[in-house]
Amino acid sequence: MAYREAKTANAKIASPYPEAVGMTQSSALPLHVPMSQFPVESGELVVGGMRLGRLAARVGRTPFYAYDRSLLGRRVAELRTVLPGVVRLHYAVKANPMPALVGHMVGLVDGFDVASAGELKIVLDAGADPREISFAGPGKSRQELAQAVAAGILINIESFREVSELAEISQATGVAARVAVRVNPDFEFKSSGMRMGGGPKQFGVDSERVPELLAEIGRAGLGFEGFHLFTGSQNLKAETIVEAQCNSYDVALRLAEYAPSPVKSLNLFGGFGIPYFPGDQRLDLAPIRDNLSALAQRAAQEMPTAALIIELGRHLVGEAGIYVCRIVDRKISRGQVFLVTDGGLHHHLAVSGNFGQVVRKNYPAAIGNKMNAPTREVATIVGSLCTPLDLLAERMDMAVAEPGDLVVIFQSGAYGMTASPQAFLSHPPAIEVLV
Amino acid sequence: MAYREAKTANAKIASPYPEAVGMTQSSALPLHVPMSQFPVESGELVVGGMRLGRLAARVGRTPFYAYDRSLLGRRVAELRTVLPGVVRLHYAVKANPMPALVGHMVGLVDGFDVASAGELKIVLDAGADPREISFAGPGKSRQELAQAVAAGILINIESFREVSELAEISQATGVAARVAVRVNPDFEFKSSGMRMGGGPKQFGVDSERVPELLAEIGRAGLGFEGFHLFTGSQNLKAETIVEAQCNSYDVALRLAEYAPSPVKSLNLFGGFGIPYFPGDQRLDLAPIRDNLSALAQRAAQEMPTAALIIELGRHLVGEAGIYVCRIVDRKISRGQVFLVTDGGLHHHLAVSGNFGQVVRKNYPAAIGNKMNAPTREVATIVGSLCTPLDLLAERMDMAVAEPGDLVVIFQSGAYGMTASPQAFLSHPPAIEVLV
Repeated sequence: MAYREAKTANAKIASPYPEAVGMTQSSALPLHVPMSQFPVESGELVVGGMRLGRLAARVGRTPFYAYDRSLLGRRVAELRTVLPGVVRLHYAVKANPMPALVGHMVGLVDGFDVASAGELKIVLDAGADPREISFAGPGKSRQELAQAVAAGILINIESFREVSELAEISQATGVAARVAVRVNPDFEFKSSGMRMGGGPKQFGVDSERVPELLAEIGRAGLGFEGFHLFTGSQNLKAETIVEAQCNSYDVALRLAEYAPSPVKSLNLFGGFGIPYFPGDQRLDLAPIRDNLSALAQRAAQEMPTAALIIELGRHLVGEAGIYVCRIVDRKISRGQVFLVTDGGLHHHLAVSGNFGQVVRKNYPAAIGNKMNAPTREVATIVGSLCTPLDLLAERMDMAVAEPGDLVVIFQSGAYGMTASPQAFLSHPPAIEVLV
Repeated sequence: MAYREAKTANAKIASPYPEAVGMTQSSALPLHVPMSQFPVESGELVVGGMRLGRLAARVGRTPFYAYDRSLLGRRVAELRTVLPGVVRLHYAVKANPMPALVGHMVGLVDGFDVASAGELKIVLDAGADPREISFAGPGKSRQELAQAVAAGILINIESFREVSELAEISQATGVAARVAVRVNPDFEFKSSGMRMGGGPKQFGVDSERVPELLAEIGRAGLGFEGFHLFTGSQNLKAETIVEAQCNSYDVALRLAEYAPSPVKSLNLFGGFGIPYFPGDQRLDLAPIRDNLSALAQRAAQEMPTAALIIELGRHLVGEAGIYVCRIVDRKISRGQVFLVTDGGLHHHLAVSGNFGQVVRKNYPAAIGNKMNAPTREVATIVGSLCTPLDLLAERMDMAVAEPGDLVVIFQSGAYGMTASPQAFLSHPPAIEVLV
């Protein structure tokens, strides 16, 4: 059987997370980086300028996700100081498609990437400029392609089929499709959380076949604009990102010779990660800045019409969001403390370790209304679902908590609500607020 | 990083699944059991008496789940011939809460178990008898408890808090709460896919504390009716189930001495699995039948007022359902065939290997409109999502397929749609039909 068994070991383990709640390090185990993006006032976490207890009252019920506008703005501003001025910053909507949040991002970033017609509707409703929206996905349907052409957005072509479908659509509607080529490069992105390029893949077109594809695009009369190279995501090693961006640039430069017209945009993706687990460190942006400056200088010579684009999802929004649920029961079973909450994996699958992870590790978590409590204990926080998979924090050092207290899961602004099985066990959905 | 990396090996592997599609065994690798519950006519799978192509036209669009009424009835009938007549058969709604399916089950089974107020609404709407509904879950809220008391269903108490909350609710409303005790036993259920009893757990009350709990229930004047023992699920080994049911019976018999009134119901759970992966065999029900007969005879002497209950979810509905999606693209990337569909893990998370599995294995799958096609190949079937996690079948031996063909994932009647992140990437939801 491949199903994961709930762990049953009785041994208590040392806390992997004292630092972020104001304790001194008491063990040699790896720690979570401090969640210092949120201030603490009178022992309460402050989110969007409001203390957590009041915010929960304002929302009206738990569980909820809260995304902090000022942190979104601060992250973009930080990137603006780091990235060369000519590099354009795009938001990958899949990370968090909450309409209010996307609307807020319209005023912050230079463009958007969508992965479905549903996401396209959200960004158009939010007022994004269609000229700065691109659409990627390995299984774009005829209808989605037609919607994208009508919207006037840039379509990242991922197969030969899409060229002929787009040619038909353009001919039938008289609207020329704007296209870029998503390239599956012939190198691998090392150390990435999730590889999306290199080897045989469903994504993009193998780089060795791109010249043939570009010829077809030319024959079909589609409006060629550039290249898109997706190499991987959730990367915390700057040198790997630097290497991948160099390689991506070189692949694009080589392929540009075969393009039917000059390259106007070159999306080097991003893959910038955020720290989730004990031992993870924040990404060092300095080497990435230096490298992008060098690439931008090369591009000014070698592809003078091309805008360089960095596309980020998780890195822009992940650290700005928390998931909040309320403790409904405190149980001690055979010596172990269980805090049972009204939340669970149906709202936040990733924190349970069931969304792409091989080994479950704890996200940073805290009792949000007892941030400075001196009395602490090792506790396991679970959701309300009738399954042993529904684990929010396993044997973590926490403030001693009671029913009514608020559990906070940090680093929850990306791939939270929409990446979770919300209908599972027919519990109420979580609320999302932008504060 | 803990995120799973997409495999990039180029080597083709022998098919793990020739048998079910009519081929002779050509390798020593483990195989899927044949999916013989669905007939094949003129090369098309027949579901609910209708050929798949026509069913897809009737549904109107892909992807969809189809659940076969006749297979649901056949499975229950099979269990009726196996289980002793006095053993009552309950359906655990969490496995598949589709309202039409639950309505169909009302005519087939003796009772229902719900895991939330949402599921309670579904079974009450479907016309189930409240006397035969029970409610389990580690995080039942005050409001859910009040709803359950008002509905007149049996509440499986899982903590001391619930006793005092129920006493208050009963006093305030004048309706006596009907309760059973969910016991966290002091033995472990071996070889189960998912353990839910033994050791420290958030589920139920540790057996050694149950006498104290029973005394409180008596003092509070709640209507005590019996015990609920959940030991684990997705078990394919009859001897383990037999052992767990014997142990559960013994625990309940021992605890019955402390009960404030005679035991009226004893839910021994079930945990019966279904074969998902290559090498899995169907559960042998004969030893379970013999053991339940013996336990029923003992119960007639030792707990004469107690009805024995077996509660099944996945085993009742899992094999009656398929997930169907349509191929939108066929791509060959560096020698590997990728069939890109309009489906994906947003509809069927478990098949992607991201719902509790440690190691991803293939579910049985086929090209449903080419069941007897002589031309075959090794292909990887993916969904339409922009993530390498979106894998429906990895390097399986399949009929050679083209855009427009229908991919069928078998064993999809349980923990499919509602156990999946349907909002992920904002694609359209799947449809569910009962046929």
